[in-house]
Amino acid sequence: MAVEAHVAFLGPAGTFTHEAARVLCGPNARYDACSTIDAVFDAVRRKDAPNGVVPIENSTEGSVTQALDCLLAGDVRIAGEMVLDIVHCLASHAATIAEIERVYSHPQALAQCRRWLAANVPQARLVDSPSTAAAVRHAAGDHRGAAIGSRFAAALHGVPVLHEAIQDAEHNATRFALLAPHDAARTGDDKTTIAFAVHDERGALLRVLEVFDENRINLSRIESRPSKQRAWDYVFIADLEGHRTDGNVARALTVLEKKCPMLKNLGSYPRFRG
Amino acid sequence: MAVEAHVAFLGPAGTFTHEAARVLCGPNARYDACSTIDAVFDAVRRKDAPNGVVPIENSTEGSVTQALDCLLAGDVRIAGEMVLDIVHCLASHAATIAEIERVYSHPQALAQCRRWLAANVPQARLVDSPSTAAAVRHAAGDHRGAAIGSRFAAALHGVPVLHEAIQDAEHNATRFALLAPHDAARTGDDKTTIAFAVHDERGALLRVLEVFDENRINLSRIESRPSKQRAWDYVFIADLEGHRTDGNVARALTVLEKKCPMLKNLGSYPRFRG
Repeated sequence: MAVEAHVAFLGPAGTFTHEAARVLCGPNARYDACSTIDAVFDAVRRKDAPNGVVPIENSTEGSVTQALDCLLAGDVRIAGEMVLDIVHCLASHAATIAEIERVYSHPQALAQCRRWLAANVPQARLVDSPSTAAAVRHAAGDHRGAAIGSRFAAALHGVPVLHEAIQDAEHNATRFALLAPHDAARTGDDKTTIAFAVHDERGALLRVLEVFDENRINLSRIESRPSKQRAWDYVFIADLEGHRTDGNVARALTVLEKKCPMLKNLGSYPRFRG
Repeated sequence: MAVEAHVAFLGPAGTFTHEAARVLCGPNARYDACSTIDAVFDAVRRKDAPNGVVPIENSTEGSVTQALDCLLAGDVRIAGEMVLDIVHCLASHAATIAEIERVYSHPQALAQCRRWLAANVPQARLVDSPSTAAAVRHAAGDHRGAAIGSRFAAALHGVPVLHEAIQDAEHNATRFALLAPHDAARTGDDKTTIAFAVHDERGALLRVLEVFDENRINLSRIESRPSKQRAWDYVFIADLEGHRTDGNVARALTVLEKKCPMLKNLGSYPRFRG
């Protein structure tokens, strides 16, 4: 995908977000690691970088709420998406697994590999790291240590991969969003993410879903988030099939503009086909 | 509210959950602090404690997804609810604010008071703690230190409150669930929490919402969570007005049992009126 060659991403170097960004924006772009999701949005908003990449949803953990809240708060758009299978590797300079005394990783990655670790590296102490990428960097300097991280991070830091796909669960994938000041042009196989509020009355959400159904629009996802305006007041975030310029989507959005107290386009973008 | 006098809660002693549990179960119950939400559910499931209390939703941050996933996974029920305004205090043994060199708290509480801290305690270093309750315990032993925590935690640890309600946002409340092996009897002013899945087809969620509307049932909240069965497969969690034994709710649930590939009652309980 040809995009401008300067990309802010959730770092440090070697994260799954970095890997997703490289797939979305190519090997020749300039990549700037940001320490938080907010900082990636800020970089795009302030035009420090024309593009950003952040995780927005995990198939097991659910939405990355910080990313959704940043999308709701600002005027940055989704211009692309990418789904990455989360495959954890054991990377170490140790010659054999028996030599490993410490396993570094992010607590979530350690948890996702707990059964494999107990069966295969029972002697090792588990050490929390701020990210899988940081864990691999750490293992690069500890020859009795190993890290759980991606093959990409292992390659980046020159640490040999001893075992691949050590995660306990079969299905673990993360969806990443390409951020930009504007969304993407129509390709004919697109998705649109919108946010909307409903009036506080019985059947209010139903009336909105009816508009999609009448226009033969499929919702691939719907989420609710606190509005941050009033306590216990929600906004919905929905992924629709189609581009906002497609006839049926455009018609539905025109109706919803009158029906909803708030409607916001968060971006139309080509659907990812893995 | 009269419940059995032994309650597992998300600790340590002095958390907002502890405070909510005391309101729900009274001052004379025996309280067991658990270190994780999973551990509270486990205590109720294994009948180590007849009741548990966990946070399930914050008015700004949204759902406590760990609590929702535990509800979905097991057969523990919601038997009550309680909403607590989150009011942060500055607690310290220092005689004046000018003497404070360190402010301890959970990163989220520090973030929620950032503007007030910058204006009033600009000289202090901010130090992360695992909970607001742990921060207050820490400040009890550091006379140049202060903690951000609840008035309840300050009283529990004997630390004077120097300032109350120092959070930047006006509205910040958390909803807590009382957990039990069985849900609560009908009172006439109840709520019911259910989980359901829909078939993967256009309008599937709409058809479910129609059933509620036809039975004049108001949904006060609807959320989606990953099913953990298949990637990108979701279940919905909804709060309904009414008890599951109310005629209209019972009728709707009977219809949904046939319509939905999965339907689970997570509990009926008296609605909290603050």
